Amino acid sequence: MNVATQTLADAQRIESPAEVRRAIRSGAYAGWTTGVALGYLQANLAILPADYADDFLRFCHRNPRPCPVLAVSEVGSGRLPGLGEDLDVKTDLSSYNVWRDGEHTETVPDLSDLWRDDLVAFAIGCSLSWEEALLADDMRYRVLDAKTGIRAAVYDTSIDTVPAGPFGGKMVVSMRPFTPVDAIRAVQITSRFPAAHGQPVHLGDPGMIGVADLVAEDLLGGAFEIWDDEIPVFWGCGVTPQRAIAQARPPLAFSHTPAHMLVTDVPSSKYAVM
Amino acid sequence: MNVATQTLADAQRIESPAEVRRAIRSGAYAGWTTGVALGYLQANLAILPADYADDFLRFCHRNPRPCPVLAVSEVGSGRLPGLGEDLDVKTDLSSYNVWRDGEHTETVPDLSDLWRDDLVAFAIGCSLSWEEALLADDMRYRVLDAKTGIRAAVYDTSIDTVPAGPFGGKMVVSMRPFTPVDAIRAVQITSRFPAAHGQPVHLGDPGMIGVADLVAEDLLGGAFEIWDDEIPVFWGCGVTPQRAIAQARPPLAFSHTPAHMLVTDVPSSKYAVM
Repeated sequence: MNVATQTLADAQRIESPAEVRRAIRSGAYAGWTTGVALGYLQANLAILPADYADDFLRFCHRNPRPCPVLAVSEVGSGRLPGLGEDLDVKTDLSSYNVWRDGEHTETVPDLSDLWRDDLVAFAIGCSLSWEEALLADDMRYRVLDAKTGIRAAVYDTSIDTVPAGPFGGKMVVSMRPFTPVDAIRAVQITSRFPAAHGQPVHLGDPGMIGVADLVAEDLLGGAFEIWDDEIPVFWGCGVTPQRAIAQARPPLAFSHTPAHMLVTDVPSSKYAVM
Repeated sequence: MNVATQTLADAQRIESPAEVRRAIRSGAYAGWTTGVALGYLQANLAILPADYADDFLRFCHRNPRPCPVLAVSEVGSGRLPGLGEDLDVKTDLSSYNVWRDGEHTETVPDLSDLWRDDLVAFAIGCSLSWEEALLADDMRYRVLDAKTGIRAAVYDTSIDTVPAGPFGGKMVVSMRPFTPVDAIRAVQITSRFPAAHGQPVHLGDPGMIGVADLVAEDLLGGAFEIWDDEIPVFWGCGVTPQRAIAQARPPLAFSHTPAHMLVTDVPSSKYAVM
């Protein structure tokens, strides 16, 4: 299969998280994980040298909306057994960003050749984890409409994170459009999932959080249309650690590529608070 | 005390619900109950002839956001012992609207002389019940600022209720302004109180629910200012039954006068869902 032509509809045909990881590990699937293995926790990834790990964990702890930590590996290990027995963060994501001295230098499909024994992997909750709960609520949820292929947009904002050691910077957010009534319902539903960013951090006027143009500034390059009866609703996003890495400038770091998440075996409901 | 000069600050000095009812019953207090006996359920009142009561109860059941029923009296009785042992709806509110054939004909301070043996009283949840929970959250909650005397505004809307028998009409809403972050928190907090209207029914653009001018259309006659960093947030309001009474045109009905609520002995937390 030519991965460049893979669509959301193709992705949605893969249902089990383990099957998704196997397809990614073997190179058979390299697309976004939006709409994939719905109902299971997905995770953002940040991998740092051990001497940066303590400060980074404090940074995440101080910024729980964008950076809810799901799991931390042992030093040198790509395993996170709490999220999947066979899971290895070196091979199980479909795309990785490589950061050298805080600069994004490469995008690679596998970390095996770049791995070092002093690295620590952090899995951070992701909003793709609760999209099934929104869909199940019979609201107009255009983000997972396979016909249009629309997905959440991602923006840099003017919202400061709380720094820790060398880590800091501005918050990145994801955005989905809703009618006001559905936005209220989305606040209720996503509040149940603090491990997956929880409730929104903003809604309404994007200018209040430093976003001037919802189409032009989407980091995923989408042409995202807000309909007349909709407002944009913004959640903390696990791309935020990538901004913190850019500020901290560790000699080497890895992250997922936005929308190419770690798919775990943990049902999202396991981490729901009620 | 001249009740016409009573301020929110005066009202807030009365703390026990029983003391509030005694002050009202004796004529010593005739003001709004906004900010009074914070932390206790307040209630909207609708009183109808028994042959309208079944349809009205179905109307409330079908419209739980504006009309959550807290208690229904026995035919001919003004007592609602579940809400307060000494409580009598004929005397314990500071102002009543009288409706004849669906028209609001008088406003009276006591129902004793107008009472009939075929009347049934409905106590309906009220958003004043959760204002303490918002205040306790350390958000900027301007509605109970004693200096400005601002309180929730009330509007007729274009939102249809679900009719039952002769009862129907449009929903009335209350409005409070919040920053977007506090609006999200207010959705979370008020969702805990389904018996007091629960989560908002709308937020943002008032035009979407048929309100063209937030100042001019306030049924309480306020000059309500929305600040630049705020959005209006709207909850179902227990004035909605008064619109339903106007549509059903019973020969006689009574209601509270907006903002003059029944103050009960029940802590609001007793009716919170978590």
